[in-house]
Amino acid sequence: MLYQKQLILLVLLAGSALPAAVDRAHDVEDLTGQKIAKARFSTDVATDKYTPPEEMDPQFWYDLAYEEIAQRLELPQPNAKKAKNIILFLGDGMSLSTVAAARILKGQRQGNTGEESSLSFEKFPYTGLSRTYCSNAQVPDSACTATAYLCGVKTNIIEIGVSAAVDFNNCTASQDPANRLTSIAEWAQNAGKSTGIVTTTTLTHASPSGAYAKTANRMWECDTDVEYYGVDPTECIDMATQLITQVPGKNFEVMFGGGFGKFLPNTIKDLHGNPGERSDGVNLLSKWQAQHPGGVLVSNRDQLLKANLSAVSSIVGLFQTELMKFHLEADEAYQPTLSELTEAAITKLSQNENGYFVFIEGGLIDYGNHYTQAGYALDETLEFEKAIKLARDITDIEDTLIVVTSDHAHALSIAGYPGRGTPILGLNHHDIDVNGVKYAVLNYAVGPKNYLDSEGNRIDLSDQIGGDDFVFPGYITKDQGVHSGDDVGIFASGPQSHLFTGVMQQSTIPHLMAYAACIGSGPQVCDAE
Amino acid sequence: MLYQKQLILLVLLAGSALPAAVDRAHDVEDLTGQKIAKARFSTDVATDKYTPPEEMDPQFWYDLAYEEIAQRLELPQPNAKKAKNIILFLGDGMSLSTVAAARILKGQRQGNTGEESSLSFEKFPYTGLSRTYCSNAQVPDSACTATAYLCGVKTNIIEIGVSAAVDFNNCTASQDPANRLTSIAEWAQNAGKSTGIVTTTTLTHASPSGAYAKTANRMWECDTDVEYYGVDPTECIDMATQLITQVPGKNFEVMFGGGFGKFLPNTIKDLHGNPGERSDGVNLLSKWQAQHPGGVLVSNRDQLLKANLSAVSSIVGLFQTELMKFHLEADEAYQPTLSELTEAAITKLSQNENGYFVFIEGGLIDYGNHYTQAGYALDETLEFEKAIKLARDITDIEDTLIVVTSDHAHALSIAGYPGRGTPILGLNHHDIDVNGVKYAVLNYAVGPKNYLDSEGNRIDLSDQIGGDDFVFPGYITKDQGVHSGDDVGIFASGPQSHLFTGVMQQSTIPHLMAYAACIGSGPQVCDAE
Repeated sequence: MLYQKQLILLVLLAGSALPAAVDRAHDVEDLTGQKIAKARFSTDVATDKYTPPEEMDPQFWYDLAYEEIAQRLELPQPNAKKAKNIILFLGDGMSLSTVAAARILKGQRQGNTGEESSLSFEKFPYTGLSRTYCSNAQVPDSACTATAYLCGVKTNIIEIGVSAAVDFNNCTASQDPANRLTSIAEWAQNAGKSTGIVTTTTLTHASPSGAYAKTANRMWECDTDVEYYGVDPTECIDMATQLITQVPGKNFEVMFGGGFGKFLPNTIKDLHGNPGERSDGVNLLSKWQAQHPGGVLVSNRDQLLKANLSAVSSIVGLFQTELMKFHLEADEAYQPTLSELTEAAITKLSQNENGYFVFIEGGLIDYGNHYTQAGYALDETLEFEKAIKLARDITDIEDTLIVVTSDHAHALSIAGYPGRGTPILGLNHHDIDVNGVKYAVLNYAVGPKNYLDSEGNRIDLSDQIGGDDFVFPGYITKDQGVHSGDDVGIFASGPQSHLFTGVMQQSTIPHLMAYAACIGSGPQVCDAE
Repeated sequence: MLYQKQLILLVLLAGSALPAAVDRAHDVEDLTGQKIAKARFSTDVATDKYTPPEEMDPQFWYDLAYEEIAQRLELPQPNAKKAKNIILFLGDGMSLSTVAAARILKGQRQGNTGEESSLSFEKFPYTGLSRTYCSNAQVPDSACTATAYLCGVKTNIIEIGVSAAVDFNNCTASQDPANRLTSIAEWAQNAGKSTGIVTTTTLTHASPSGAYAKTANRMWECDTDVEYYGVDPTECIDMATQLITQVPGKNFEVMFGGGFGKFLPNTIKDLHGNPGERSDGVNLLSKWQAQHPGGVLVSNRDQLLKANLSAVSSIVGLFQTELMKFHLEADEAYQPTLSELTEAAITKLSQNENGYFVFIEGGLIDYGNHYTQAGYALDETLEFEKAIKLARDITDIEDTLIVVTSDHAHALSIAGYPGRGTPILGLNHHDIDVNGVKYAVLNYAVGPKNYLDSEGNRIDLSDQIGGDDFVFPGYITKDQGVHSGDDVGIFASGPQSHLFTGVMQQSTIPHLMAYAACIGSGPQVCDAE
């Protein structure tokens, strides 16, 4: 492709001697705090940049705008139908900066400049913004946010399925019925719908747990964990046990993810060859099998794809002992993709004539961002968007509401004035710091590597950057990156999806889904009919 | 207020010895690149945080959700009327992180925890996401983006009102009629509407210029500037001259902003006592007066408020020689607020029975972010949201479409896990870096101050942080902060506002506004009637 060659040429021409790009310098303070009077705007940002030829014609943009208008005019206004099925896709830690960067990577993998690309869910007709703060946290974690978008209530950080009246790790308070919440999965079950959870993390991880768990500490994943935090596991039941033995978890017809170890005693090995983590000697999966005649347990891709989903009553898939592997690191023959999990889940759940609710999480986006390995975060986002495309393709837009959102943002930026088509995982060749050193396009506020020399100056990353596993700069040095408090996106398609716009509390999302599907105790579209 | 005292107490209790907050540590790489196997999740983020008592009751969140659902159900579905008037509010550099942080500051100024607050435009019923890249820039400037949201065409960085076929600073190409664009201001004039521009920067700054200028270099603000960039100002006319002498600028009935100097010869002083910047000896304002009988020029707040807006034919306000001052630094008796400018503009323009188009910019949000003086950026955002509230209050929602958006994001994050109510302009008291040093809640990827000691370690900011003018940390050191490439928000209210949802090209925005108002050459809602 011609422009790619041009691009490489331009990047080479740009060299390392580009002057600093400055936007609107005007009475700027220099590094000593002195005002630099009327510094002239640097137009260096206009230097050596590539423009796609087709975009030079104004009509290109007029046509694109008319197409985007036509799409909006073609919408059902509104699609006032009841949603038979609800699919909630959750991109963990998928900040809007992650979405934009992943979109660019998608296009660049296809050989294009990238910025003009779209993720599948970005084509959904309605978008909203979700306010993610929790009751005691300006910037939340994945536990209190799961409680918001699955139970419809904001709570304290680290807690799941209980109200903010419960203090962290307080077993007694978490047992008080007044403090225990119900999730949209339970509301769906009460309406006769099938339910399921799918994640690339573990079944007992914070996000999927929002669908079934009530816990004052997200770390109470198995009894050993409860004890570790100084609580009696016979008084406060661990999340794995809740999933297998309590409503609504025990009624889930689909449970796909990692975390095999949380369900097995430490005296036996799981199907991946690793010992279980439980101290109580309980094999929860045997228990589940006994209580689910016709239920099947699978642990790898081959078993999943061969499962006769129309014949099984329920299906549990535990594809790793702990977290599932990053897509880029996984053995594709062993670990199913999120798309494969999604297809199996929908196939199974759609057998119910009353419809279904399913929670599907791209959970490793967050891990990629925490490790400041943006390559992993973006690749996981692309796996996530593929699964969403598949879900939209194999379901009926007339009866299936799909909502895509995230739990919280990450402190990731796409910084400077990189030229069109600049590799999103590479260096910004169009700007330099005060020492003349280029910087990465992607940067994190906090992370394990700051790439400073012994005098505190940034080092040149040219020789290091570029691989999928590159650890991007995080300038406040910690073991890993941190969440950010800006809003995350909501993208909706299907019946009542027009309601998922505007700025809203994250905790409103399940109530809106319930409204659309005529479940739960709140307002329902069926009331209005 | 009790909880504020509690909050202070908690912050004090938190002290400086808090262990690092870690989310989901798992096979984390340490700083030497070694994997730390199975580091246990740190639940320290749950420590010493304040929870508002009312939020402990789940019903609080149910009620809030039902209220948010009711708001959505009450919407006209859709309001299919034609928009008589269009107001485009542009928050320059108002990233979604800036919006969230400003919301928190608003609430905290009112004595609340802050996160639960809302900016006026966040209550608008419809939200979309705007893709801001330009033809040759992954991350854009304010010039190419102004061309997108005002002319409906993406172009090259630093250019305004011309297509991407024009290279930077190329006078000849910018004169080619095939490359010259028209703005929605011109479309509105052609339909008999009144038009105007309002900005807190200069009338010839990149953003407002998108409404009238055609230039291969945003710096060509006066003839002296054109010459500075090696171009003959008699061949490529400067933007100030375009505004006063060419369509559509010369027809603007309202022009409010700074930048007096660009309109006057360097031989005379402006009404603020400073010399003009023009070398060609032309007094553009005398020229304007001669061509606008009944037109009035004002230069301070008193003159503005005393102007008989129903009697004047047109009004120019030039309230500073260069940029207007930050609201926090301005003499309130001398410089009008953005709300006052907005009220005057709407009062004047609404005299036209055919309606109006007006562009109103909070232009110093961007400056605050560039200087990494978040206090200024957020205060300017609050001035901006006040002006929007006023505009919505004094116009008829049935006939006036208000669209609020930004041109580009900034690399600003709200990082870590600060507790509820943590002062947004202060330190995060709930997390520390690898050396045990706390960090600010707000951080920029790039900025003039990185606050590192000679060995590259972050210094404690406790004694420095807190003032409105504090320069927040920017870890890649440059003279100022830089833009970011994530999407910005679109918030819409009024006729056809339901179309402003979904992810869209920034260049689609004016076409959608034109559709709503039945102006321009594209699709119009009136065609469908």
